[in-house]
Amino acid sequence: MSYLRSDAFKSFRPTKASIPPSLRPGLRMKPPAKDMVCVHPLNPLDFLLRAAQIYPEKLAIVHPDTPTPVFYTYSVWTQRVQNLAYALIQAGIKPGDRVAVIAPNSPMIADTNFGVMAARAIPNLINTRLKPSDVEYILEHSQSKLILVDHACAHLVKNSPLPKILCNDTGREEGDPYEAFLTGGRKFSQERGWSGLESESDENAGAMLCYTSGTTGRPKGVITTLRGSYLAAIANAYDNQMNYDTNYLWILPMFHAAGWTYPWANTFSFSTQITLRNVDFDLIWNHLLNSDVTHYCGAPTVQIGVVNHPKAQKPPRPVKAIIAGAAPTAHLLGKLEEIGITPIHVYGLTKTYGPFTRSYAQPFWRDLSLEERSKLVARQGHSFATASEVRVIKPPKDEDDETVEDVPRDGQTMGEIIMSGNIVMKEYLGDSEATRKAFRGGVFHSGDLAVVHPDGSVAIMDRSKDIIISGGENASSLAIEQELSSHPHVLEVAVIARTHPKWGERPHAFVILHPQHEKTWASKPSAFADDLKKHAKDKLPGFACPEWVEVVPELPKTSTGKIMKHELRKRVAKL
Amino acid sequence: MSYLRSDAFKSFRPTKASIPPSLRPGLRMKPPAKDMVCVHPLNPLDFLLRAAQIYPEKLAIVHPDTPTPVFYTYSVWTQRVQNLAYALIQAGIKPGDRVAVIAPNSPMIADTNFGVMAARAIPNLINTRLKPSDVEYILEHSQSKLILVDHACAHLVKNSPLPKILCNDTGREEGDPYEAFLTGGRKFSQERGWSGLESESDENAGAMLCYTSGTTGRPKGVITTLRGSYLAAIANAYDNQMNYDTNYLWILPMFHAAGWTYPWANTFSFSTQITLRNVDFDLIWNHLLNSDVTHYCGAPTVQIGVVNHPKAQKPPRPVKAIIAGAAPTAHLLGKLEEIGITPIHVYGLTKTYGPFTRSYAQPFWRDLSLEERSKLVARQGHSFATASEVRVIKPPKDEDDETVEDVPRDGQTMGEIIMSGNIVMKEYLGDSEATRKAFRGGVFHSGDLAVVHPDGSVAIMDRSKDIIISGGENASSLAIEQELSSHPHVLEVAVIARTHPKWGERPHAFVILHPQHEKTWASKPSAFADDLKKHAKDKLPGFACPEWVEVVPELPKTSTGKIMKHELRKRVAKL
Repeated sequence: MSYLRSDAFKSFRPTKASIPPSLRPGLRMKPPAKDMVCVHPLNPLDFLLRAAQIYPEKLAIVHPDTPTPVFYTYSVWTQRVQNLAYALIQAGIKPGDRVAVIAPNSPMIADTNFGVMAARAIPNLINTRLKPSDVEYILEHSQSKLILVDHACAHLVKNSPLPKILCNDTGREEGDPYEAFLTGGRKFSQERGWSGLESESDENAGAMLCYTSGTTGRPKGVITTLRGSYLAAIANAYDNQMNYDTNYLWILPMFHAAGWTYPWANTFSFSTQITLRNVDFDLIWNHLLNSDVTHYCGAPTVQIGVVNHPKAQKPPRPVKAIIAGAAPTAHLLGKLEEIGITPIHVYGLTKTYGPFTRSYAQPFWRDLSLEERSKLVARQGHSFATASEVRVIKPPKDEDDETVEDVPRDGQTMGEIIMSGNIVMKEYLGDSEATRKAFRGGVFHSGDLAVVHPDGSVAIMDRSKDIIISGGENASSLAIEQELSSHPHVLEVAVIARTHPKWGERPHAFVILHPQHEKTWASKPSAFADDLKKHAKDKLPGFACPEWVEVVPELPKTSTGKIMKHELRKRVAKL
Repeated sequence: MSYLRSDAFKSFRPTKASIPPSLRPGLRMKPPAKDMVCVHPLNPLDFLLRAAQIYPEKLAIVHPDTPTPVFYTYSVWTQRVQNLAYALIQAGIKPGDRVAVIAPNSPMIADTNFGVMAARAIPNLINTRLKPSDVEYILEHSQSKLILVDHACAHLVKNSPLPKILCNDTGREEGDPYEAFLTGGRKFSQERGWSGLESESDENAGAMLCYTSGTTGRPKGVITTLRGSYLAAIANAYDNQMNYDTNYLWILPMFHAAGWTYPWANTFSFSTQITLRNVDFDLIWNHLLNSDVTHYCGAPTVQIGVVNHPKAQKPPRPVKAIIAGAAPTAHLLGKLEEIGITPIHVYGLTKTYGPFTRSYAQPFWRDLSLEERSKLVARQGHSFATASEVRVIKPPKDEDDETVEDVPRDGQTMGEIIMSGNIVMKEYLGDSEATRKAFRGGVFHSGDLAVVHPDGSVAIMDRSKDIIISGGENASSLAIEQELSSHPHVLEVAVIARTHPKWGERPHAFVILHPQHEKTWASKPSAFADDLKKHAKDKLPGFACPEWVEVVPELPKTSTGKIMKHELRKRVAKL
């Protein structure tokens, strides 16, 4: 089965009313009033209009794994985006309004990454795995004016009084309200095209709204800017050498930190995006083997699923796997490289448009063993192409401490990672107090604890709340996980602090065994615990060795593959 | 002879006083006061500081072809740039001041592309091929405060009353005033490092000053911005896939349109720059064959010199040749591709930081003949990665006409190319009237005449002053040159208008014969003229066929390889 190589898409044409007779003239928005000819507000929307000018017939969006597959060229996609903008304006959406979007990866959510912006409104991308009550909170808090909702997520908003546009993800006008919405937008436009839409004159205007999952307390709404989105997207396109020949597979949900700006990075690159509704490793391998995929993003847990799949083998083209959310282990790096997938470790937050740092390979790494190298790759590294310098400062005394003082570059002194500059968020929506705290001292406080090595690379030791204070020593749960995962029978591991009568806290390790070793330890979990503890003692100081080892069939994870340590903490609290 | 592969550079260390014991801490300038944490002024200086952080030991500048070769790592180079900034401040240079720089490609001019900026001053890069009187005019008009001058250019400024720092291009402190200047800067810094230098808070502040050669009238001083330089440089780095493995050969002079932003694009990419003092094809081929060169820039005349050199053969690594200044001919394209050099045709002006458009290859080009394809490659194409849309408008009635009205996309209607957005210059220094005229209607008027093809690509027909009005028809001198150059015996050709008693004007062609065919026509120039006219008649309308054909041994060219048509016009005016 070959997707991009097949002629399948040629036999399909999307809703006729969505396609204008000729697109090319007038791919230009009404320009903002200008102070200076030489200053044009940065806006990722320009990427789409440029792509549609240069490569109108290039495939932009491919959505093949549904009963009614759709394939949109840049020309057609740009028209759909334009229709969406007009439809939103017709529905009363004003500049700065929030438009809620709840959908898995699909053409509809891809449309909104540009179309809502083209109406100068802000897409509020909502995590599809939330509970209805959380969704309700976000809709209210964001004061969203309208909901664009995929059919699979309709139950999440069924009690909302807001106007809803249901998308059945068919690409056909008949029976698909979203498609009818677009067609309505086109009619409303009266063929004024892009020149009937006003471009945003303030590059620091809000671009996207993403609520962070928030392990404690209510989710907070992160507002990013057009300028930041533009610069972060270019950095991702540049740093991963994306171009006309790039085929990007959407495994990472687009709603997660605005898809790390890849919706725009791909468009800047004239690449082809393949949208996968769900993380289905069978389908992922179909695409890796048959669709000439060159790039995908995912947390380590996703990557583990990729390399351990029975179909895993060398794909026909070299693939770059961008990894964030946690550091990849030596085992994972080795497995990926074995099948020709180049792992790229980046680090960032929703508040930094995804990647803010990257582990940049040094020439001497070539001479290291896989295990030595993996320790360097696991570092968060140096600042990303358009980011300002990442820094680690002495931990603040409290949430009002404005002091910004760098820790020494000794690889030992732990401090808090701070960021600043163009790819840091603008603010928390409607929460000036949280914004003030996050930005105190004129920098963004990440809440991640790290050291700086003599070469200037930063390495996260922990989230401040994940640190284990064992016998008065600070033990990094991440460092412990890194060492435990080097045990050949460990597939995945999570370490948390558990109360200890003598030491205050001690590490508790949750372990998933590698499938081929499950049987070995099936009836003797305590023997495995002993074996792993012995392995740990050779590698870790005593206070960092796990006191408890628990073999589990799976770990609780967020929709984006992050391990939910707060769930594990709840579990041990009951013990 | 192998340069980059050799260990030669390891045995050499530049002036000891220029190298600090440890560079890494404090590669951060004093930050500007901030309105918003998320807005950091765009400034290419950030590229250098980031490169020195991530790859301090990577070779940044290689200058091997002198009696005292020098090799600077990013770490050392960054220190030299810092020293230069302090030295300038010590010399009384204030923010916004102009510092004149007259030098061929060399480490000194490379330093100034960052070091003058680090002092918040503006480098005034002066063409080394100008006459002393022109240099004098520029120095006065720019109100430059200081001159940094290479020993080979000292005669150009010997009458100037300004303070001068002579550079003997040795990299040694003894007997090289420039090196002593840097050392003085270091002493003056009192080891405050980058944190003792203030970063520019206004990204629209002047970045560079380049005087355009001006075929008529006095040269005009183009002021660009930090924001534009940042965005244009990233576009060049992205679009030509430059990265850590890039070895860039400096054939294009850095003083020409600020080296098309490649001083910054290279630094953004962590690449290695090899500086060539002169366009010496023997040396160029030494580097193409032995230094693993991957990229270089040059006008077609330079490229002709490259492909026709006796050493021409397939270099060990794929090479990208970026071509601007005129369109490459089919012959040149074919020759370049034959030896594994990929030609990339871009178009722009000093006022647009070099490249503003590029001829983007389309998949169907693969199926075309070389000649058909070369006609498409020769188009100026579509807008560059961070440029706003390039447009062609109905020619203005006069220099006060503010009308901006696009010509139809018919490939026939000629109009004027206009540009706007972030990679358009800020202004002409001290000439508000010329600035107003250039920016009338809120767009930049290029003075180039072009058509727009149905696919949106633009194709230059001529400079407005180069058009030939023959029998009332507009004949494009470029189109005629393109056709004449397809004659197998033509190496290079230039066509201008010559007064004609009956037709008003008629084309006059100056031709350089291909060396291997020189003998064929040696004693019979009129036979060649007949042969070429016959060739032209098959391809061009009658009014565009050359009335006169003149075989010449060489063509008058600017230092950057552009043919000086005004010189040719002077010549025919005398006939």
